[in-house]
Amino acid sequence: MAKVRLPRRKKKRRTGRVGAPPGALEIDPNAPKPVLRAIAYGPDELEEHEVTDLAQLDALEERFEVLWLDVVGLGDAAVLQRLGERYALHPLALEDVIHVHQRPKLERYAKNHFLVMRMMRRPKDGLDAEQLSLFLCEGGVVVSFQEREGDVFEPVRDRLRRRSGRIRQRGADYLAYALVDAVVDAVFPVLESIGDELEELEGQVLEDPTTESLQRIQGFKRELAQIRRMLWPLREALNQLQREEPGRFTEDTLVYLRDCVDHTVQLVDLVESHREIGNGLMDLYMTGVSNRMNEIMKLLTIISTIFIPLSFLAGLYGMNFDTGSPWNMPELGWRYGYPFTIGLMVAIGAGMLSYFRRKRWL
Amino acid sequence: MAKVRLPRRKKKRRTGRVGAPPGALEIDPNAPKPVLRAIAYGPDELEEHEVTDLAQLDALEERFEVLWLDVVGLGDAAVLQRLGERYALHPLALEDVIHVHQRPKLERYAKNHFLVMRMMRRPKDGLDAEQLSLFLCEGGVVVSFQEREGDVFEPVRDRLRRRSGRIRQRGADYLAYALVDAVVDAVFPVLESIGDELEELEGQVLEDPTTESLQRIQGFKRELAQIRRMLWPLREALNQLQREEPGRFTEDTLVYLRDCVDHTVQLVDLVESHREIGNGLMDLYMTGVSNRMNEIMKLLTIISTIFIPLSFLAGLYGMNFDTGSPWNMPELGWRYGYPFTIGLMVAIGAGMLSYFRRKRWL
Amino acid sequence: MAKVRLPRRKKKRRTGRVGAPPGALEIDPNAPKPVLRAIAYGPDELEEHEVTDLAQLDALEERFEVLWLDVVGLGDAAVLQRLGERYALHPLALEDVIHVHQRPKLERYAKNHFLVMRMMRRPKDGLDAEQLSLFLCEGGVVVSFQEREGDVFEPVRDRLRRRSGRIRQRGADYLAYALVDAVVDAVFPVLESIGDELEELEGQVLEDPTTESLQRIQGFKRELAQIRRMLWPLREALNQLQREEPGRFTEDTLVYLRDCVDHTVQLVDLVESHREIGNGLMDLYMTGVSNRMNEIMKLLTIISTIFIPLSFLAGLYGMNFDTGSPWNMPELGWRYGYPFTIGLMVAIGAGMLSYFRRKRWL
Amino acid sequence: MAKVRLPRRKKKRRTGRVGAPPGALEIDPNAPKPVLRAIAYGPDELEEHEVTDLAQLDALEERFEVLWLDVVGLGDAAVLQRLGERYALHPLALEDVIHVHQRPKLERYAKNHFLVMRMMRRPKDGLDAEQLSLFLCEGGVVVSFQEREGDVFEPVRDRLRRRSGRIRQRGADYLAYALVDAVVDAVFPVLESIGDELEELEGQVLEDPTTESLQRIQGFKRELAQIRRMLWPLREALNQLQREEPGRFTEDTLVYLRDCVDHTVQLVDLVESHREIGNGLMDLYMTGVSNRMNEIMKLLTIISTIFIPLSFLAGLYGMNFDTGSPWNMPELGWRYGYPFTIGLMVAIGAGMLSYFRRKRWL
Amino acid sequence: MAKVRLPRRKKKRRTGRVGAPPGALEIDPNAPKPVLRAIAYGPDELEEHEVTDLAQLDALEERFEVLWLDVVGLGDAAVLQRLGERYALHPLALEDVIHVHQRPKLERYAKNHFLVMRMMRRPKDGLDAEQLSLFLCEGGVVVSFQEREGDVFEPVRDRLRRRSGRIRQRGADYLAYALVDAVVDAVFPVLESIGDELEELEGQVLEDPTTESLQRIQGFKRELAQIRRMLWPLREALNQLQREEPGRFTEDTLVYLRDCVDHTVQLVDLVESHREIGNGLMDLYMTGVSNRMNEIMKLLTIISTIFIPLSFLAGLYGMNFDTGSPWNMPELGWRYGYPFTIGLMVAIGAGMLSYFRRKRWL
Repeated sequence: MAKVRLPRRKKKRRTGRVGAPPGALEIDPNAPKPVLRAIAYGPDELEEHEVTDLAQLDALEERFEVLWLDVVGLGDAAVLQRLGERYALHPLALEDVIHVHQRPKLERYAKNHFLVMRMMRRPKDGLDAEQLSLFLCEGGVVVSFQEREGDVFEPVRDRLRRRSGRIRQRGADYLAYALVDAVVDAVFPVLESIGDELEELEGQVLEDPTTESLQRIQGFKRELAQIRRMLWPLREALNQLQREEPGRFTEDTLVYLRDCVDHTVQLVDLVESHREIGNGLMDLYMTGVSNRMNEIMKLLTIISTIFIPLSFLAGLYGMNFDTGSPWNMPELGWRYGYPFTIGLMVAIGAGMLSYFRRKRWL
Repeated sequence: MAKVRLPRRKKKRRTGRVGAPPGALEIDPNAPKPVLRAIAYGPDELEEHEVTDLAQLDALEERFEVLWLDVVGLGDAAVLQRLGERYALHPLALEDVIHVHQRPKLERYAKNHFLVMRMMRRPKDGLDAEQLSLFLCEGGVVVSFQEREGDVFEPVRDRLRRRSGRIRQRGADYLAYALVDAVVDAVFPVLESIGDELEELEGQVLEDPTTESLQRIQGFKRELAQIRRMLWPLREALNQLQREEPGRFTEDTLVYLRDCVDHTVQLVDLVESHREIGNGLMDLYMTGVSNRMNEIMKLLTIISTIFIPLSFLAGLYGMNFDTGSPWNMPELGWRYGYPFTIGLMVAIGAGMLSYFRRKRWL
Repeated sequence: MAKVRLPRRKKKRRTGRVGAPPGALEIDPNAPKPVLRAIAYGPDELEEHEVTDLAQLDALEERFEVLWLDVVGLGDAAVLQRLGERYALHPLALEDVIHVHQRPKLERYAKNHFLVMRMMRRPKDGLDAEQLSLFLCEGGVVVSFQEREGDVFEPVRDRLRRRSGRIRQRGADYLAYALVDAVVDAVFPVLESIGDELEELEGQVLEDPTTESLQRIQGFKRELAQIRRMLWPLREALNQLQREEPGRFTEDTLVYLRDCVDHTVQLVDLVESHREIGNGLMDLYMTGVSNRMNEIMKLLTIISTIFIPLSFLAGLYGMNFDTGSPWNMPELGWRYGYPFTIGLMVAIGAGMLSYFRRKRWL
Repeated sequence: MAKVRLPRRKKKRRTGRVGAPPGALEIDPNAPKPVLRAIAYGPDELEEHEVTDLAQLDALEERFEVLWLDVVGLGDAAVLQRLGERYALHPLALEDVIHVHQRPKLERYAKNHFLVMRMMRRPKDGLDAEQLSLFLCEGGVVVSFQEREGDVFEPVRDRLRRRSGRIRQRGADYLAYALVDAVVDAVFPVLESIGDELEELEGQVLEDPTTESLQRIQGFKRELAQIRRMLWPLREALNQLQREEPGRFTEDTLVYLRDCVDHTVQLVDLVESHREIGNGLMDLYMTGVSNRMNEIMKLLTIISTIFIPLSFLAGLYGMNFDTGSPWNMPELGWRYGYPFTIGLMVAIGAGMLSYFRRKRWL
Repeated sequence: MAKVRLPRRKKKRRTGRVGAPPGALEIDPNAPKPVLRAIAYGPDELEEHEVTDLAQLDALEERFEVLWLDVVGLGDAAVLQRLGERYALHPLALEDVIHVHQRPKLERYAKNHFLVMRMMRRPKDGLDAEQLSLFLCEGGVVVSFQEREGDVFEPVRDRLRRRSGRIRQRGADYLAYALVDAVVDAVFPVLESIGDELEELEGQVLEDPTTESLQRIQGFKRELAQIRRMLWPLREALNQLQREEPGRFTEDTLVYLRDCVDHTVQLVDLVESHREIGNGLMDLYMTGVSNRMNEIMKLLTIISTIFIPLSFLAGLYGMNFDTGSPWNMPELGWRYGYPFTIGLMVAIGAGMLSYFRRKRWL
């Protein structure tokens, strides 16, 4: 048996946390430097800028109804701190933005709503669940923080750029909803890809159950458990959001958020159903392994039980009794002794084979 | 072992969802074109029409107390949109109508109640759970959306056509209840058919446990898990409905709805009891497989343990010791050496057989 | 392996339900015709009548404080309907009376309380859970419906007949309580009989685990699951009843009902403890089966490992090397070659046996 | 396999209950006759009496602040009834006192609090859970009922007898608390003894897993399940008590009761942790059994696979081909044929052994 | 199989508890004598003292805003009692301080908040969960009790000593929060170390599943169960604390406590995910063991099934039939009989090997 390893779990080390002052922005040295992309729009106009100086934002905020500031990369404490001051982001919230191992959650601060979610994607090498931190601030500003380039928001950007889109007519709360919706809906293809692979694995398990298939089953179970652990608190957070008094969120947007909660419930359902399939695969694997074993044992039994009596017979006539006495092995002197013995052996073998066949062991 | 596959699960792809604007009516290109069937009635009269122009509905609505518009097929966005406008159906609700993978749920909009359910049937090739979307609108109108032809409402239609039926005396809320009741009661025969097949499978598993029986057990477990996942939210939705303030629903209809909730509770009970039977079958299967194995092993043991000593004896007298010495194998020279040896062998074999029988291994 | 079948579950078909109008009294054609037995009593007098004409009841109701009408057999819709009209029994309640597959439940209607319970008995051929429907009506009337002759109320009738009994001093609510109490207490002997059989089965499983014992274990697990499914809603229903505002039930009777709830809690406890014993038996069975297997395997190993080397030795000296060369099998020419070989064989066999004994495999 | 039996569960028959009037005091004929022991005390004085005539109590009640009447043995209905009348104990409560199979519970009657608990001890032959019924009555009277001699209250009595004890300064509610506390704390040594035995059993299971160890594991699981079933309702009952409005219990005593609830929570934790150890033992047992099996199988394999080829070789040279032809078995005529063959056999055997060793099967 | 023992669980005996008066300070004779370390500070100054006389504290309390009294060692009842009097610590709370087997919990007394937590560390020899008892008293005093030297508070002390630290500007409630936060965050490295060892164990289980790996898996499961049992009540206690009305805790500190609760939720998540990995390892172990077994069995089968027919053939030609008759074993007289037989044997062996290879058993 070759030395096989389970796929490495991505480490999420919380180094240097014990006893550190809360709210301290301890930047992960490997985190990419932040890039700030602003999309500012109203019903009629839309502008996209890469922001290098926060002062650029003053003008945009003034001219447009809604400003979406998308911060990609968390590798610079100074930038984050200045953003924190500008938009009154709580130090603890900023700490959560940087420590990218948060469970999805909703925090309501005096001046903004803070939502942590996970953008799920599933490249070849396993589940990727990048943390997305979203602030809905006063004055029509939405600030989002991503760990690195690449997100699930391209369709939202497209809808923003199209002047006809409903989204252009609405406020920052609807934009926040649209981003949440994109994050939630991105889980569907992830689960579909797991579902497809589970189905493919099923055939493989039935055909040839190997240790590798066991490890894949376990890998899927872990992925599903991980997704589940992200969906439950997400559902909870969105549920809280949807039950908000209309205020920062218009009543209309809250209806849309209810739809979003609905989708998370569907996702949880899907995950549960995939988990059941995974458990079923586990049973199939176990049965497959024991079936193989049984097949091998059956063959041993059949070959052994057929040949052991025949060998005994051959051994019998190999005895060296003194054939001088007429009582001793007279068969050896018979004219047709050998053909008769061979015939007897064939008959015994055939009888056993037919017995096994009748017992349906063959 | 032949290559066996689990029954294909019906795919419910949510293509093109990620980031799409909410409320967009993305029609599945394979969905059949909608056919609109109207049944309008009061205590005294009833008319049935196939509606091709929505304007036809004006007259019916005016002349009759209750109008049931049954839309079969979801393949035309324009028709659905016009219906949506006519009866104030919320865009998100219409989206749910089209994306036929919804969990059962109840939504209360300002102008109507929206209920998603699943009509369960169980043709030969597995469970079929067609989505039924029901709107109870203002002015005595009930609009139902089905995915395709064929439903569980024929008995309701019969009761409507019979002038004496209580249902003709009552309003649209009672019609909505009758439809819900038909959907709920349609689950009973589905569970009965699963129960019958489980019982039949039980005999088969005891007689000859094959990989195919394992797959059937797992198939049943999946079906039951699927039905369960539909019943729980259905129960929840009906429970909410039944707790409504009398308004759109008369107090009398609410009593009937309570009866409906009761039926879903009974169904959940039945599903649980079937699941337990399924788990029991799994145990039986496992035991059956290991029993077969044990039987085979026992045979091997018995044949081996009987013949191995006998073969040894035969081998012993096959040795070529120089019989010149009187100490070397004098038995070979005995007058009755061979018959004595044969007798010894028969005695050993019989002794062993009786030992096994005493141990109850035979 | 003989073809064994699990004990048939009693079928509870819900024929003709789908889409049928609610409240319709679809009589099971096999149900026995109803017999109406009235017991009317006050503190001083008691009369028992078999009622053939409902008009007989007028006099009884007038003359006595309490009237208990016990309807045995549900095979006549007309009788039930007339009773329904007389005592204002709701059509849905009457439907539940007839469809004898209800879960225990409590329904509060305007003019009466409706309680569904199951009278459990356990004759030789498995659990029998006859539905008992109980109405506590206005004016001191209790109406009970049973499926067939034979019930658990004989001790209650005896207490009624004894003039000194406390029950004669009290009202219809106390009678209803007494009937409920009798139904609840009837579950104790059922669980005791299951407990006794479980204990007996335990010895059997340890001694000789057969497929039949597995089936009996599973049978018990099903029975217990069934009882549990009846006890939980019963507890719930009685709990609701006990929390009633004093009104139809006097405060005193409510205290007694609390005691009843207590008994159901004890029953649930008993069921859980029996289920654990059942699960333990399952483990014992599995271990028993594998122990038997191991014993057999051990014997095979011991006999094989003893004789295989001996047979090899015998085979060795059966080789036909040309003893002309002094290098070839000189042992065959030794004077004591044969006794020496036999001695060697005995030594090997004894050595192995003592090794096995030291390993505690014997 | 010897016929082994699980330890007998103590029977708790509820004979004659079905339909019996509630509140009837059906004495178990085997129950010991009641002995009444009174301890009456105030801060300064304490008297202990064995009470034979209830009239003796009048004086004690009058002279002392607190009276603890401890009734040991439940075998006399008359005594219980007279006590019931004297202290206004509800008939249903008295029934619960006598039917000693109650779950722990709290009942609040108009004139007293009634608490059922179980005193757990663990003599050699299994868990003993004697029912203790406690009434806190008006006028500083505590009445306790035990099934038989022997209880966990000796330390409480010692503290009462010591004049300096805090308990002497306080009222009957504090005495009730002290008794409850003694009952709760008595569970700790029971769980410790189970824990010790579990640990000892663990070594035994690893060394030599026998059917008897399996039965002991199952015995522990049952004991723990039984203790758990007593702790949960006890916690619930004490929780209710602790949440009482100060009245019968002083605020100070309620704080102490909260501490008691805390102990039950710790006990539940301990039980859960013991149950996990028990489940782990089950796994160890299963592994131990299969390890033994595997060891035996390995030996068979190794001996068989070494000797089977060697025996074949011996058989080969035992063939009787006519050595007249130079093609037929020339090896038999070689000068060193036999030593060469022996050498070949040794080489094959050694090669296999080293192969097995490399595979780490030895 | 060597006698292996599970790692000893640390005993937590509750000796002498049964019936002892509540609130009695029964000192464990092995507990180290207490050392009192005071840190007193305000925004500008900080002093650290080892306190030998409680009178020293008067001055510190007066001069500084905040006083942290850290008591290390619980081996002196007198010291604890004097502290209890000085800071109005409830006798039951002091009892909990000394009986170091408490579950985490929060108690609110009139004059202080009492929080029990566990400082988790994981030295080589298993989990160490020292009890930390924390009192937040009136007048800016925090009293903490540890079992022995060594804690997780060094970073907090460092932050206190740095004059610039935010913690110096704030009150005693923030200090209490900082201590709680340090305790909570100390669990992360513990779980990380378990996670690393689980991953390492995984490779080992796949390569060579031994009884020792099973014991390690079970050890991890126990550790995780233990941590879980500490985290749940800790989360509950912190949750209660965070929901306090601002008073003893400022609103600002409560926000920080909410963050702490968040961390416990993350920890619970981590524990759950580790438990799933542990369960997966258990499955891997089981599969690994059975795979080894199967491999061994396969070898037996292959060697047996190849040699058994060959041995039979050799035995056949070892028979001693009288070759005088032309019908008896003419093959023995053939010129190429022996090479032909050898060739036949090689062909049979090769055929079987190729069959096994085709079946993928090799």
